[in-house]
Amino acid sequence: MKRRVTIALIAEEAGVSVPTVSKVINGRPEVAPETRQRVEKLLHKHGYQRRGSQGDGPVGLIDLVFTEIESPWAMELIRGAETAAREADASVVISVMHTHSGPGRDLLDRIAARRTDGVVIVSSKLTPVQHGQLSARMIPFVVVDPEGEPSPEVPSVGATNWNGGLAATRHLLELGHRRVAVIGGPPDMLCSRARIDGYRAALETAGVEVDPELIRYGDFLVGSGHDQAHALLDLPDPPTGIFAGSDMQAFGVFEAARQRGLRVPDDLSVVGFDDLPLAKSAWPPLTTVRQPLQEMATLATRMVLAMSRGEQPETRRVELATDLIIRDSTAPYRG
Amino acid sequence: MKRRVTIALIAEEAGVSVPTVSKVINGRPEVAPETRQRVEKLLHKHGYQRRGSQGDGPVGLIDLVFTEIESPWAMELIRGAETAAREADASVVISVMHTHSGPGRDLLDRIAARRTDGVVIVSSKLTPVQHGQLSARMIPFVVVDPEGEPSPEVPSVGATNWNGGLAATRHLLELGHRRVAVIGGPPDMLCSRARIDGYRAALETAGVEVDPELIRYGDFLVGSGHDQAHALLDLPDPPTGIFAGSDMQAFGVFEAARQRGLRVPDDLSVVGFDDLPLAKSAWPPLTTVRQPLQEMATLATRMVLAMSRGEQPETRRVELATDLIIRDSTAPYRG
Repeated sequence: MKRRVTIALIAEEAGVSVPTVSKVINGRPEVAPETRQRVEKLLHKHGYQRRGSQGDGPVGLIDLVFTEIESPWAMELIRGAETAAREADASVVISVMHTHSGPGRDLLDRIAARRTDGVVIVSSKLTPVQHGQLSARMIPFVVVDPEGEPSPEVPSVGATNWNGGLAATRHLLELGHRRVAVIGGPPDMLCSRARIDGYRAALETAGVEVDPELIRYGDFLVGSGHDQAHALLDLPDPPTGIFAGSDMQAFGVFEAARQRGLRVPDDLSVVGFDDLPLAKSAWPPLTTVRQPLQEMATLATRMVLAMSRGEQPETRRVELATDLIIRDSTAPYRG
Repeated sequence: MKRRVTIALIAEEAGVSVPTVSKVINGRPEVAPETRQRVEKLLHKHGYQRRGSQGDGPVGLIDLVFTEIESPWAMELIRGAETAAREADASVVISVMHTHSGPGRDLLDRIAARRTDGVVIVSSKLTPVQHGQLSARMIPFVVVDPEGEPSPEVPSVGATNWNGGLAATRHLLELGHRRVAVIGGPPDMLCSRARIDGYRAALETAGVEVDPELIRYGDFLVGSGHDQAHALLDLPDPPTGIFAGSDMQAFGVFEAARQRGLRVPDDLSVVGFDDLPLAKSAWPPLTTVRQPLQEMATLATRMVLAMSRGEQPETRRVELATDLIIRDSTAPYRG
């Protein structure tokens, strides 16, 4: 048993009152930002562990923080997190940021105020300040599909996005397509960049020129697949194969193709990414790159739960394998 | 201010120790069931209000309890609940029962142990005992889409399912279809019964005989739509129009039709229920009955939050309107 660091000790070292330290720990707003940061640093330095109202036992809550929950993709992550939480007699709290800039001060304060066993952050980035806030309060956290480059000490879970992009594009090339386009997610999202780099690698190793006009960006939802597909199909030399960055985007590509009287896969081959439960009942059933979304969230949640029990994660970065699932939305190039 | 009921008072009246009452309030397991029920009754009778570790202020958590979260339908409810919770600076906790028999003792104990501002229960039934457990702890709750007949004092939010069933079936009858089938959800779910009753009413008022063979039940997911559609289309006199109890079931009907070489809507008209975001990008775009899922969950969450502040809900049962959205999966009967 390590000696407990008291609030009094922290207060003395920070030169503030005990109630002030208490306010910082409980996420109360009435503390000046500089004071808050000084106290947070000391809490972190001394490895302060909060003595909760029910002792130091688990709270039974894991926070799952999203930037959006419009897509059935989020449902898969919730299902995976819920599985791991249930194993540990815990429940999952959903928070939505409605911005890609990471969880705001308010949210972290609110989470700290009511206590949590840990935070799983989906597709967003942590600023060094936010990182400090979580660390100071000894709140373990793991990032799923980090947006931007996470600092090396932030544990994260993702999929082999680069390999997925490579496999999707090679599949289209092997079917004889040469004008192959890609629709990615937001350009600053690491998972999206990796998929597009895999796409480039497939073209380059096959000796096919990379045409910047065929590389598009969207937001992973149906609408951006629809809009970017129309833009691509309006080109003087349009693509005959499109690798969409998500299944939802691929459904948007299907819609655009139908609006133009193009048949999938006869006139246009389409590959998705995710393999959502709906991909196989889509029409035509969607060829896609499966990423194990439920398993990713289960793993991230288990990591956070283990960290909350004081265990160190075995690795800081885990990538689960992607698989190309060939269905009926891709066909040989017909010239 | 009403006089605070103390734990000591409850303990005396129940003939148990103060720690025992405390254990019941905190949802600890080590209390005999009969003792627990006696204490819960007294807590309820005296209107005991828990003094939380942070005073009597809000906890900042609303529990959303599902029986399944496999369908994008659940995502819409989560989005709606999150909107209302965010307005109140609260977050949504997701729990999944994996059974239609309502939240188990364990879950309610766990929720009570960590405190909550209220519980929204989706599509499941509360036994009188569970109802008592929530009431005894003064945890407000609202049911969305109750399964089975809720007791009159349980506040609930639903949609005008009967009208929706009527409108969907009338639409098919007006297109000239006479062999019209329905695929419902579980027969004991009130929302599903209401839709099927609306279906019957449409047939009867149009003077079309109700054929029990054309009334099927499933679980609202793609698979049951697929399986029941095959069973219906195997009949000697198969239907030419199918009213599916959910959009997901309708996508399953699409799949079954394709497998049999039938075109929707030329050979088979299909109507769904829900109007999920995917319904309009399905192929063909799905004619469906829109129920305002997000609004239903927002309203239920707001009701629970108001109850947690001591307000009484204005009405015990709210039904939001459904709307028939005509798209391309329905066409005139071709004889």
